[in-house]
Amino acid sequence: MNSIEVCLTPDLIHQHELAGKIVVVVDIFRATSCIVTGLANGVAAIKPVGEIDEALELGKQGYAMAGERGGKKVDGFDMGNSPFEYMGKELVGKKVAISTTNGSKAILKSDGAQEILVGAFLNLKATVGYLLDASRSIVILCAGWKGTVNIEDTLYAGALIDELAEEMETSGDSAVLAHQLFVGNHENTEAIAGESSHAKRLAGFGVEKDLVFCMTENEYNIVVKLEGDHLVS
Amino acid sequence: MNSIEVCLTPDLIHQHELAGKIVVVVDIFRATSCIVTGLANGVAAIKPVGEIDEALELGKQGYAMAGERGGKKVDGFDMGNSPFEYMGKELVGKKVAISTTNGSKAILKSDGAQEILVGAFLNLKATVGYLLDASRSIVILCAGWKGTVNIEDTLYAGALIDELAEEMETSGDSAVLAHQLFVGNHENTEAIAGESSHAKRLAGFGVEKDLVFCMTENEYNIVVKLEGDHLVS
Repeated sequence: MNSIEVCLTPDLIHQHELAGKIVVVVDIFRATSCIVTGLANGVAAIKPVGEIDEALELGKQGYAMAGERGGKKVDGFDMGNSPFEYMGKELVGKKVAISTTNGSKAILKSDGAQEILVGAFLNLKATVGYLLDASRSIVILCAGWKGTVNIEDTLYAGALIDELAEEMETSGDSAVLAHQLFVGNHENTEAIAGESSHAKRLAGFGVEKDLVFCMTENEYNIVVKLEGDHLVS
Repeated sequence: MNSIEVCLTPDLIHQHELAGKIVVVVDIFRATSCIVTGLANGVAAIKPVGEIDEALELGKQGYAMAGERGGKKVDGFDMGNSPFEYMGKELVGKKVAISTTNGSKAILKSDGAQEILVGAFLNLKATVGYLLDASRSIVILCAGWKGTVNIEDTLYAGALIDELAEEMETSGDSAVLAHQLFVGNHENTEAIAGESSHAKRLAGFGVEKDLVFCMTENEYNIVVKLEGDHLVS
């Protein structure tokens, strides 16, 4: 039987063997929610980069530049970290370079996996379908916040486990922990996500609408996958 | 208001500022349960050491030697990691040197804190009383298993938070996660602890009786504290 592990933060990635497995990277507030939204709305491809300078370089080559540090848009960039910025008609068919505090870095840390997906509540069912078909062991990598564990990414991990539980078995206690968090709160995921320190931090920026959108399940029916160094759907 | 943080594994200790705070180290299966049991049954003091060689050196000075690696007693040592080995009359008034896979190392990593306590379900209420009187911010350090998160230590963190919740506020999402795990499972902590990979690993050694004992609340009414380099009650 294939297994599902959960890596609660990129700081613990050394505890997981990635070779031969599918890594699902999640950063609900808000990088992977933005990535899924962009690709569902016609963006051609998204390149995750670690540093702001790399995004600026790609900007010169015609990429739209997306980036956030500490929850705020990088000066001079086209988009920050609100999913509503990823729906514009001017982005259709365009490539985007994205650098975020946690999400982009988590994607880059997944190097060595058989495949890398990007997940969000927005495309939960589509990702579940893909994973069931692929029939491989999975590591869900929660981007967290600057290396710390967060509620919303852990909750997504629990939701994914809940969907896959009949076909796969959890491996390691982090997976049990994530699943328990989801089981105890699945009727009101927004409320428990609102308890997250990240949500509280962002609330000061007036982005409540973003947070509600990021917790919406199955808004889009796409799977997001890393091909070469670009995310595509 | 004082705060309570949870460090889910020693591998994440760099994310926590310990200065001025009380660290409560927990390794339910089974180091801190053994330490509490020993001190409650008349052991004079327990010195946590990192390596087996250090325990051997102290053995030459008259210490009883306690230690486990991978769940099994170290050859030639007086005690392994079963709490029932820490109740013997021959230990009354004696000093013990202890080296375990996770617990001793977590205690040594807490260096820099204002005070270091050792906690277990066995002395939960006594520790709660001490922490309420001390009125300082707290970091609960879960020893985990070789750097990974585990259920039983997280569950203890959640239980401690539940007792302190009226007087202190949680800080960080790991504390919310631990509290949620406890709230969802407090009526049957033994069952969820049995789901832990550590419990499953130990079950093969025929130590079910140990695991049940380690999940028993308030068997002993002592507080265990590091004074100098020895744990005392």
